Amino acid sequence: MALAAGAEATGCTHTLMEKSWAKLVNLKNMVIKLGKDDPRRVIHSFKVGLALVLISILQYFRPSFYAFGDNIMWAVLTVVLVLEFSVGATLGKGLNRVLATGFAGALGVGIRRITSFSGDKGKAVLTSTSVFFIAGTVTFMRFSPRLKARYDYGLIIFILTFCLVSLSDNPENELVEVAQERLFMIIVGSCIAIVVCICICPVWIGQDLHHQIAANIQKLADFLEGFGDEYFNNVENTTGAAGDKPFLHRYESVLSSKSSEETMAVLARWEPCHGRFRFRHPWKQYIKIGNQIRLCAYKIKALSVFLLPSEKTPYELRSRIQESCTNISIESGKALKESSLILKHMAKSSMPNGHVANAKAAAESLKSVLRSNPWEGADHLEIIAAATVASLLIDIVVLVENICEAVDELATLANFVPSELLHRGTVQPISDHHGSVHIISIAE
Amino acid sequence: MALAAGAEATGCTHTLMEKSWAKLVNLKNMVIKLGKDDPRRVIHSFKVGLALVLISILQYFRPSFYAFGDNIMWAVLTVVLVLEFSVGATLGKGLNRVLATGFAGALGVGIRRITSFSGDKGKAVLTSTSVFFIAGTVTFMRFSPRLKARYDYGLIIFILTFCLVSLSDNPENELVEVAQERLFMIIVGSCIAIVVCICICPVWIGQDLHHQIAANIQKLADFLEGFGDEYFNNVENTTGAAGDKPFLHRYESVLSSKSSEETMAVLARWEPCHGRFRFRHPWKQYIKIGNQIRLCAYKIKALSVFLLPSEKTPYELRSRIQESCTNISIESGKALKESSLILKHMAKSSMPNGHVANAKAAAESLKSVLRSNPWEGADHLEIIAAATVASLLIDIVVLVENICEAVDELATLANFVPSELLHRGTVQPISDHHGSVHIISIAE
Repeated sequence: MALAAGAEATGCTHTLMEKSWAKLVNLKNMVIKLGKDDPRRVIHSFKVGLALVLISILQYFRPSFYAFGDNIMWAVLTVVLVLEFSVGATLGKGLNRVLATGFAGALGVGIRRITSFSGDKGKAVLTSTSVFFIAGTVTFMRFSPRLKARYDYGLIIFILTFCLVSLSDNPENELVEVAQERLFMIIVGSCIAIVVCICICPVWIGQDLHHQIAANIQKLADFLEGFGDEYFNNVENTTGAAGDKPFLHRYESVLSSKSSEETMAVLARWEPCHGRFRFRHPWKQYIKIGNQIRLCAYKIKALSVFLLPSEKTPYELRSRIQESCTNISIESGKALKESSLILKHMAKSSMPNGHVANAKAAAESLKSVLRSNPWEGADHLEIIAAATVASLLIDIVVLVENICEAVDELATLANFVPSELLHRGTVQPISDHHGSVHIISIAE
Repeated sequence: MALAAGAEATGCTHTLMEKSWAKLVNLKNMVIKLGKDDPRRVIHSFKVGLALVLISILQYFRPSFYAFGDNIMWAVLTVVLVLEFSVGATLGKGLNRVLATGFAGALGVGIRRITSFSGDKGKAVLTSTSVFFIAGTVTFMRFSPRLKARYDYGLIIFILTFCLVSLSDNPENELVEVAQERLFMIIVGSCIAIVVCICICPVWIGQDLHHQIAANIQKLADFLEGFGDEYFNNVENTTGAAGDKPFLHRYESVLSSKSSEETMAVLARWEPCHGRFRFRHPWKQYIKIGNQIRLCAYKIKALSVFLLPSEKTPYELRSRIQESCTNISIESGKALKESSLILKHMAKSSMPNGHVANAKAAAESLKSVLRSNPWEGADHLEIIAAATVASLLIDIVVLVENICEAVDELATLANFVPSELLHRGTVQPISDHHGSVHIISIAE
């Protein structure tokens, strides 16, 4: 029995070790994936470590500093809380922290001066009252969406600092000195955070937003360029065909990107001139483009249903509108691709307009095909899927035009230079009858 | 000239005062709107003020406390940072803060003990190294989406506390005592924040999520119930008709609610049993329902285009599919409304199934209408809009069924009780030929 128990215990230990090992392997894989997905994450972790080591070096040389004392912790607090992944977030938080600490500290010292004229009990009552009203008011201000977007952190720090100064133990005569020292340490911490963030492989959130919007347009373009071939192929039995073609699903991430884009645009406004982005780059326009992209993505979502084999109208019926529908989807895709290139190279171009014009021509051609009643005599139940595809594609042309216009507006607002080098090509108008698919010639 | 300058100055002052006055009025209106939109905001501001006053009262009675000292600031810091609008967020932050402070403090003290055996220089090097590695590793862990969702705040506090302990000035023998005192103050602060948050008009984020999902289903239901009448009315010239009917636009907020729902579901998991929600309420199911709702909303977005007067097929063509389309939209709307009621009253009901069955029957009836080629001879360009509406409505039935199923699953998971009182009605099947619209009789 003892033997059996021993064997069981060994078995248990064995299972436990196996489980732990499996968990460790999982963890390792997760870490590798996180780092591979965005190697800047590893660099950021390194930066946080470095900034804290800088602070600890400062502390090591403390004696040569003016009355440094235990206030080092304010610099540590500041570095840990202020140093964010992107420059925009770090600058925003750093400025918020320094300004809020300064103002709240001054207000707190002022109110303490006033309360010091009353007796001990009066002082306690006045302090509590002022803490109650100021904390309550500032907390309420945090609910304002406009203030929340840019100054939320500052408002919290304001409450915090004001309460600390009001409720602190320091005697009246030391108070100003202590407050000044802490403010100084917070400025030191913020500066270290900002310098480390900007000087070592900076992550500009504005640039990320710019690239994300360009990538999102590209995702829609990929879908549209591929849609024609997918929908009008004659192979009826490709079950799950849409499943293994990633370009047909990539656009889905666009559907729910609204809040992340808005956050990025707010943070980008804190960033100074960098690369080809100036300080007052029109970040709001990106939100506008993003909204237009999403409207198009909703439509594409409705369109994507018809790629399921079960939803397909017989090929014979589909084929009657194949030419113009394929043209619409390819030309819309190309217009979006060109718009995405405008963003990518930050170079003005009129190429999208050519493709939009072609897409519009194709839409008109589709309409005239429809006017000729291509499905005369067919079962109406069978044509509704094809009719829906036609209708959605016609709608998409307008949405694509809106995206291209919004990108063009951005190009004007941000003074993109017209690039002769990138776009020496021309877009040839498609003819209604020949419907050639390869219509762009780029003369390098 | 002096007179003129004086007049000008008076004018300037006058304009300035007017401007300031206008700004003040604006501010007042904004404040009133913020408070009216959600009166709980005013209560929350009051609660923050109160919690801080409680801390200041504690400080006033300080002498009777054990070695309270300047550590009061840790309680203030904790209250300001932990006390959030909802109970879930406050509990999550409070637990994160206390646990992270405890663990990081213990680790920090342990490492300091170890480094104390080496010389002054060795100690500085070892401290810096450990700060670098631990801060870097934990920062990297913050990028993991799973950890970020629930423990982000805890991870920051871990870094913070570990650095503070490692870099603090306190001599070795005082260190443990100081750390214990601070941990104690943080526990006091967290408790005050949690007690104030729960005891005074608590805002349960789980309840908010529950109501939001119910309201979102209701929004879709309103659109669908109204769609039939809107689309099939014979008044061709109601320009902007859709503009002044809010129920046709309310669903739009659903399109971008994904991230807020996910945040709410994560926070809700911290909340204890409250009202009719138990501790392990199936919050994840709400995310699933939310996703189904959004899929339906995307489809409705595509459908809403056809309410524009410019997009309407001539009434004569529309009228041929009016009966079955109206039935689909009304029955889908009713199914959603009943599902929304299941959530609202937290009472199981089979009513949605009846309406879903009716909607399916109506879809079949629409298909048979289409099989009879109702638009024979009509211009195909003119019928594509009507065909698209038919096709989208047929798709919507499936999506509505999915929503109802997901709600039903929630009702099972969360053990909603079957309510005899609420739903003593029956859903009568609609007949294909008479298509009566009022088909529900509720026997009270």
